[in-house]
Amino acid sequence: MANPIRFHYDFASPYGYMAATKISALAAKHGRSVEWKPILLGVVFKVTGGVPLPSAPLKGDYSRRDMERSARLFNVPFKLPTKFPIAAQSPSRIIYSLESEGPARQEEVTLALYRAYMVDDRDISSPEIAADVATSVGMDRQKVLDLIADPAMKEKLKVETEAAIQRGVFGSPYIVVDGEPFWGFDRLEQVDRWLQSGGW
Amino acid sequence: MANPIRFHYDFASPYGYMAATKISALAAKHGRSVEWKPILLGVVFKVTGGVPLPSAPLKGDYSRRDMERSARLFNVPFKLPTKFPIAAQSPSRIIYSLESEGPARQEEVTLALYRAYMVDDRDISSPEIAADVATSVGMDRQKVLDLIADPAMKEKLKVETEAAIQRGVFGSPYIVVDGEPFWGFDRLEQVDRWLQSGGW
Repeated sequence: MANPIRFHYDFASPYGYMAATKISALAAKHGRSVEWKPILLGVVFKVTGGVPLPSAPLKGDYSRRDMERSARLFNVPFKLPTKFPIAAQSPSRIIYSLESEGPARQEEVTLALYRAYMVDDRDISSPEIAADVATSVGMDRQKVLDLIADPAMKEKLKVETEAAIQRGVFGSPYIVVDGEPFWGFDRLEQVDRWLQSGGW
Repeated sequence: MANPIRFHYDFASPYGYMAATKISALAAKHGRSVEWKPILLGVVFKVTGGVPLPSAPLKGDYSRRDMERSARLFNVPFKLPTKFPIAAQSPSRIIYSLESEGPARQEEVTLALYRAYMVDDRDISSPEIAADVATSVGMDRQKVLDLIADPAMKEKLKVETEAAIQRGVFGSPYIVVDGEPFWGFDRLEQVDRWLQSGGW
């Protein structure tokens, strides 16, 4: 059985969102599954000294333009959220709570949460709103609110983010194929080639 | 007459080098010329808070891998220089001194200087070495040494770098097509599409 593709993403990352809409089809084309790994870039940036794109002088303005241009080019519905970025604990914990249900279910809920934020401008950092979105794809609202507040889920997200940093993750999306790392929505074509050829 | 493509690059930037090897053919395909605009990213980073890639935690390691992988994929000879990055005043001034000779000559000398640094590991921040390289493509060695030390050329590079910052340039390569900015070697395909279609 071929290794799964490890897909690290922050729910506040537009490029993470765009990649999330494409990664499963790309993996399936090569007989691979996806490991869904939400992380908190805010924690990563404390280690790397990185800054959220909107706060970066000059690069912030460019990145807004590039996000919208990339979304149009690759046919991904996208509207830069009013509140941007956000702290993504609530949606991230929901995804880890679904590990036992498998990657297809994690993908479905990931995309529902991303769409709520990146298309419908809903602030999914709010546990209430994140729970509403999860309910819309079949989760139990009270169970979702409970898991968001569950110390075990808090710890799980913390451990996963720390493990990602240990493996070198510094941005979103950050995709690992058989040990080879690819950073950015704009590396999906290289991921495709790597899966096809085993490297170059 | 269609607008030239404005090509900003730092001589210490591997992605700037890779783009420099491709940009003229890309421009010519669409009946465009190239404006060669060397800049000093060190000056830019004082405004933006950016850091040279090798100094960026985690991202530095990734970027070395990505540079070598990108070079192999796009068939660009590349060997990460021993001294990296460098301050690029000497090569940049040489290119501005050639403005009156036109973009083809600026390209030829740009590529000779980049190859010396990015393939042959020669430290082109040294005026002597930069002059040797320029001599190898037909420039007069003493004239090159004189222009590198010329206050007018120092001022020219300073003014061009400041103008680039004013226009939003924060990295290398940074390519402007009819007012539309594209950052990165990995945006050349989008530059091609933009030139073809006039935007999307």
